[in-house]
Amino acid sequence: MKRVFGIDLGGTTVKFSIVDEAGQIHEQWAIPTDVSDNGINIPSDMVESMREKMDGLTGDERPVAIGVGVPGPIVGDVVERAVNLGWTNMPLGRALKSELGMPVALLNDANAAALGEVWMGGDPESAGGNAVFVTLGTGVGGGVVVAGRVMNGDHGCAGEIGHSPVAAHESRLCGCGKKDCLECYASANGFVKTANELYARAGSAHTFTSGKEVFDEVAAGEPLAIEARDLTVEYLAQALAQVVNVIDPREVIVGGGLSYAGHLLMGPLADRLRDYVFPGVRDRYVLRRAVLGNDAGALGAAYQALQEIAG
Amino acid sequence: MKRVFGIDLGGTTVKFSIVDEAGQIHEQWAIPTDVSDNGINIPSDMVESMREKMDGLTGDERPVAIGVGVPGPIVGDVVERAVNLGWTNMPLGRALKSELGMPVALLNDANAAALGEVWMGGDPESAGGNAVFVTLGTGVGGGVVVAGRVMNGDHGCAGEIGHSPVAAHESRLCGCGKKDCLECYASANGFVKTANELYARAGSAHTFTSGKEVFDEVAAGEPLAIEARDLTVEYLAQALAQVVNVIDPREVIVGGGLSYAGHLLMGPLADRLRDYVFPGVRDRYVLRRAVLGNDAGALGAAYQALQEIAG
Repeated sequence: MKRVFGIDLGGTTVKFSIVDEAGQIHEQWAIPTDVSDNGINIPSDMVESMREKMDGLTGDERPVAIGVGVPGPIVGDVVERAVNLGWTNMPLGRALKSELGMPVALLNDANAAALGEVWMGGDPESAGGNAVFVTLGTGVGGGVVVAGRVMNGDHGCAGEIGHSPVAAHESRLCGCGKKDCLECYASANGFVKTANELYARAGSAHTFTSGKEVFDEVAAGEPLAIEARDLTVEYLAQALAQVVNVIDPREVIVGGGLSYAGHLLMGPLADRLRDYVFPGVRDRYVLRRAVLGNDAGALGAAYQALQEIAG
Repeated sequence: MKRVFGIDLGGTTVKFSIVDEAGQIHEQWAIPTDVSDNGINIPSDMVESMREKMDGLTGDERPVAIGVGVPGPIVGDVVERAVNLGWTNMPLGRALKSELGMPVALLNDANAAALGEVWMGGDPESAGGNAVFVTLGTGVGGGVVVAGRVMNGDHGCAGEIGHSPVAAHESRLCGCGKKDCLECYASANGFVKTANELYARAGSAHTFTSGKEVFDEVAAGEPLAIEARDLTVEYLAQALAQVVNVIDPREVIVGGGLSYAGHLLMGPLADRLRDYVFPGVRDRYVLRRAVLGNDAGALGAAYQALQEIAG
């Protein structure tokens, strides 16, 4: 059974996995990400680490391709920019391929996580279908899988669900420069901000610093926390419904910090999403939480590499 | 050069075209759609018409595959339902294939029009990329093309942009059973309704019966008509931005009756869409009007058939 490298390239660490065609992870290790000099040393550090690992492996143990999830848009085999790494137009694919002599697949990190979740996180039957994946963390990331392949888009920007416009009752500036993106309201930060605003407006001095704290109040039946949760769910359901209506998926997958709230988030989200989707798809998709956690990206990157060598 | 049938199956007529690989239409004719007995005779009528035509053709003139755009969702080679034809679970693909002995491709009619526009309506370079197509007619139809292939979705419902939820300031019931779908506001009917409401609220007895009438007032600089146009553009831009952010397309194509307003619609739409899309895709897609009119569906159906025989 073939094995490939599945790499999750982040601003702090580069996490390597060796993954086989069945999705089993055989080895995992990490190196620090050297962001000095606009991250110029990162590709050679990656090559060195993979070379060292390969020296200890023989026969079928040796990976035959490389998949890398990168925090930025990918066009061809070039990372167009990655702010956290200091990169602009970094030809990462070519660099790894020429040094290691094996096929290299690059994909955006959120797209990698989407692909990983679709491949190994759910019903194996779903792996060949369409899916939408959204992560509710510091920001809102996303990825879309079509017929088992992750969409990259014509400019490396497909799946940017977090920057869908929402019709909010107030105005918030997004990190992307736009106003009132989904991310301003459905990220953990946005959710906490909404809760703090509602509490302040009600004259409470209580301030939250994490989504978990707000969900603890939701669990306790606190009306203002529930109102904040419902607003977040409302914006998220509207944005997800648009994606569901456009791609008609088998799976709608929610990950990231807020998803740990479980049914407190997913229950109302299921109801609102059901209201908003086209009747022809209603009750025909599975809405579920992401289950792979930090391994999703490495698995998705590995899967992309396996798809490329399969042709 | 290979030729195929491209068929636009509607509730009133079945329009046949014979199309070659370069997109040239060699013949076109139509037969009435017999919707009696829940449309049971339609497949055999289609077979008979194609047989008659083929009898007069020789060699390379003879089509080698069939593409059909159908007014309903397609799952595999079955039309799940088509209200205008009276069909439920009609195995049209199998019926045509067994009678005529050639490959058959079925696709939803809006998806066929999307594919036709992408194939023959714009820059040939765009034909292999991603595109979103929306028609603003009696309703709002849509289709999404990914890497040159039209998305059908896991339940035949991909591209239902018209049923995206919009955050409207009032409440309208959509034909699909939901409330406040894009179609309620951005279809020709919805646009006329918005204009009539604004005029009535202002104490005017003026009522419009067509989108063209409203656009005539827009052209004359009439503030209420402009307000109606701007509201319609606002909803449409928000819904399109969500699709653009998710699929990162080369082309955004607008067809249907309202698109004949030209710059009166497309100018403000371009501005609002630009505001709402993710900065990474901004100014990198082409927003344009559909240009193929009634031929789009037949061409798209033909293209799908050509893709299937190409493998």
